[in-house]
Amino acid sequence: MNHYTYDEIFIGQKESFEVCISGEMLDSFCGITGDLNPLHSDAGYARAEGYENRVAYGMITASFMSTLAGVYIPGERSLIKEVKIKFAKPVYPGDRLVIEGEVTDKNDTFKMIVLKVTMRNGKGEKVLRGSMDIMIRRDDQSEAG
Amino acid sequence: MNHYTYDEIFIGQKESFEVCISGEMLDSFCGITGDLNPLHSDAGYARAEGYENRVAYGMITASFMSTLAGVYIPGERSLIKEVKIKFAKPVYPGDRLVIEGEVTDKNDTFKMIVLKVTMRNGKGEKVLRGSMDIMIRRDDQSEAG
Repeated sequence: MNHYTYDEIFIGQKESFEVCISGEMLDSFCGITGDLNPLHSDAGYARAEGYENRVAYGMITASFMSTLAGVYIPGERSLIKEVKIKFAKPVYPGDRLVIEGEVTDKNDTFKMIVLKVTMRNGKGEKVLRGSMDIMIRRDDQSEAG
Repeated sequence: MNHYTYDEIFIGQKESFEVCISGEMLDSFCGITGDLNPLHSDAGYARAEGYENRVAYGMITASFMSTLAGVYIPGERSLIKEVKIKFAKPVYPGDRLVIEGEVTDKNDTFKMIVLKVTMRNGKGEKVLRGSMDIMIRRDDQSEAG
């Protein structure tokens, strides 16, 4: 986990990580949210709708923005204030996603950063574009815990 | 699960449901996303940061927008295109949330609706405000599956 302070973060800074989406992840997400929509749970239904396989919940893909902010950039001091998400392509079980964040703005008054988010699948296609406004907590204190 | 078609949906239409946030949900979300930020997993750390308890991931609260669209409104035919989220108050394990969606716009050309989303805790305080642009699939076909 990273522990960047507000002052350590610069415009243009990037962090990225990879995840592999699995059917078990979708099942687990369904267990949390109760979203029983068959597009995400029933491969036969999804194929009849013109998809390759059951489709990952958009909001499970978006959930990796939590990890991007809370673990990578800024890491520990992250407090997400606002999120914008556009879904560009379906994501399927077995897809390996590269999740990247780039700092595009800093606000010294509020100690906030804007992180542009891009997620690409194994073919290099953008599956999600988004942004987050993130406050950096405890900028001038030592690390707790 | 609802199965509203585009034509059946009207501006002003509302749907809502309730969920109780649990520590197990946060653990499960961490298992999916790998977001190990201690604000969400370590009650002692969170209290030292000024919170009542471990704080629910913003993106887990936001994930109930998936259920709102995919189960309630429009239900089965939902295809979320775009999401905007503002986090207003922390959510804690044990909080009971009322999640409400209201149709604020319809686009006949693209068969899309705009859903305004509000989530309130047991004290009636808004914890999340947001909106979703949702396409309605298969408007003129019979239900599959």
